[in-house]
Amino acid sequence: MSKTLDSTPQADGFRMPAEFEPHKGCWMLWPERGDTWRMGAKPAQAAFIKVAGAISAFEPVTVGASRGQWENARHALPESVRVVEISSNDAWMRDVGPTVVVDNRGTIRGVDWRFNAWGGLDGGLYFPWDRDSLVAAKVLEIEGADRYRAPLVMEGGSFHADGQGTLITTRECLLNRNRNPHLAQEQIEALLKAYLNVHKVVWLDQGVVMDETDGHVDNLCCFVKPGEVLLTWTDDPDDPQYEISRQALETLSAATDARGRPLVVHKIHQPDPMAISAAECEGLDAGETAKPRLAGDRLAASYVNFYIANGGIVMPLFDDAHDRTAMDLLVRLFPDRQVVGVQSREILLGGGNIHCITQQIPMGEYRSR
Amino acid sequence: MSKTLDSTPQADGFRMPAEFEPHKGCWMLWPERGDTWRMGAKPAQAAFIKVAGAISAFEPVTVGASRGQWENARHALPESVRVVEISSNDAWMRDVGPTVVVDNRGTIRGVDWRFNAWGGLDGGLYFPWDRDSLVAAKVLEIEGADRYRAPLVMEGGSFHADGQGTLITTRECLLNRNRNPHLAQEQIEALLKAYLNVHKVVWLDQGVVMDETDGHVDNLCCFVKPGEVLLTWTDDPDDPQYEISRQALETLSAATDARGRPLVVHKIHQPDPMAISAAECEGLDAGETAKPRLAGDRLAASYVNFYIANGGIVMPLFDDAHDRTAMDLLVRLFPDRQVVGVQSREILLGGGNIHCITQQIPMGEYRSR
Repeated sequence: MSKTLDSTPQADGFRMPAEFEPHKGCWMLWPERGDTWRMGAKPAQAAFIKVAGAISAFEPVTVGASRGQWENARHALPESVRVVEISSNDAWMRDVGPTVVVDNRGTIRGVDWRFNAWGGLDGGLYFPWDRDSLVAAKVLEIEGADRYRAPLVMEGGSFHADGQGTLITTRECLLNRNRNPHLAQEQIEALLKAYLNVHKVVWLDQGVVMDETDGHVDNLCCFVKPGEVLLTWTDDPDDPQYEISRQALETLSAATDARGRPLVVHKIHQPDPMAISAAECEGLDAGETAKPRLAGDRLAASYVNFYIANGGIVMPLFDDAHDRTAMDLLVRLFPDRQVVGVQSREILLGGGNIHCITQQIPMGEYRSR
Repeated sequence: MSKTLDSTPQADGFRMPAEFEPHKGCWMLWPERGDTWRMGAKPAQAAFIKVAGAISAFEPVTVGASRGQWENARHALPESVRVVEISSNDAWMRDVGPTVVVDNRGTIRGVDWRFNAWGGLDGGLYFPWDRDSLVAAKVLEIEGADRYRAPLVMEGGSFHADGQGTLITTRECLLNRNRNPHLAQEQIEALLKAYLNVHKVVWLDQGVVMDETDGHVDNLCCFVKPGEVLLTWTDDPDDPQYEISRQALETLSAATDARGRPLVVHKIHQPDPMAISAAECEGLDAGETAKPRLAGDRLAASYVNFYIANGGIVMPLFDDAHDRTAMDLLVRLFPDRQVVGVQSREILLGGGNIHCITQQIPMGEYRSR
């Protein structure tokens, strides 16, 4: 049902819509591995249930679960959520799922990037990633959408599009020697343009401090509308995040988008620096196949890691003093959406947050030319 | 997405349509177990591909494959066939899939029978059957159809409906002590009426000789239209099938259906008796968890084990002298459908045939009351 195509979205007149454009639905995966998620993944599962439940109030949600966890996931998740069997090596649908593109005749297709678990054997997070590699194709089969196989090692969390021809990404990730060492920046940019049909790529240097994805942009900043970017921030000049955010602000403020507009940048203050505790580490399975987590390691907490649904925002909360200000800001920036907060420390402990565990399927759109 | 309901189809105004009513599509599973399918299941996979390809010319086909075989199935099957990840213990979608019922307002729902691998530890065909038990629910999730959980150990191949209130089944299977020993015939009949919304059950005694399902009716006879039944037959009085078919003919000829019509019975001559060869047995994995197959064992070959698709019939052929007559008869009995034959010995070696490996999803129908 899902054909694999040899052409590119650009050649075929397909483009990547912004996350704030209308969705057909949202896909997630069910967490289970004991070396990523403490206590047999039970606290993470509880957080994923809250996220899936919150999103399903706005749009249809499908969760993929392994053979061994399907029955448990089906019983644990709300009945409004569809649960299908999809095996994976972990639960990061943003990074292993398809990037779905649309034309103006109501058709959707998916871009299936090459995946190497955020760096393969050179700093990647686990081995093997064989099941992750098939997730995008499996999602596209169920969606009935044809598939582009992009010749680029990359993850969905490493870029954000404004839907009008502009992409933001980071050099730390896309130019990392553990992704596409044989390709220069211009070649990577050409592939991004071909597979996402964008015309302007804004390159930032680095992602959030201690982000184990090698600096995914989706934890650092995102578009809130065309021409406006929201950036994680700290007022503390002694925090290593300060210089990263300051440089990103400088680059973004100096940039224009694909339509020639200067970018307006909003700052959202990060939660206070937080670390994984010894007790939390004790709940993890030991092993050599996944990156070890050590007590005291800083967690890459950021409010930017939220999901934009149809009419809603589902945002991470950290039981932190900045939660309220962050939520108030999102309410102001998204006046037409209901903002729902989910306490997400258990997702953060696994290495990401709400945006990382979700992937939107945009609505095919009909437009007169 | 798929809710489990406490009521029954009968109470809710849903009924099981006949297989010859319009379909939304067809589901199958991908064969892989080496103790059912010889030579690592490769010859069976080739036959399943032919069946899926033939049906997909008439209606959408989805094939469920395990994690380990998904990629192979996706590449081997035609692109027109959708391939999703669904684990199972073997490949008999007729028996482990849902029986889908319809109301007259366009809604479909599924009946999920209890499954014990055709008899559990008392003559069943393998252990365990834990994955099979979840297949119907997984299909219904993807179809977005709510689910009835029927309190009856039974398989989809053990009954045929005419869509107008009549059901045919066999005592050999439904009254077998290895299915529902705590229920009497009247109690089972009451459950069939409640879950399939039929008003008349025609009980035959026995299925085809050596049918390891304990006499599934779908290998013995089927409705070709309301009021007309097609029965596997032999003219050889020394064949043990002779007496079984003769008795079935007697019962069917004496019966009336739910609307009070006498049943017209058409005979279709079986292929000549055939057996599994020593060479074929040698290609099977050895083990104690599945019923052993021995060289010389008679195979339960029958032309009745075909699938009725939208505008088509996909029927088994055995490279037998009776193939041509059987096909001619189906062409005559189904004048509005194209009859396609598939050489199916490799499916028969696994213990069933085309009807056993398929399950239709009827079209929800809209009718004025």
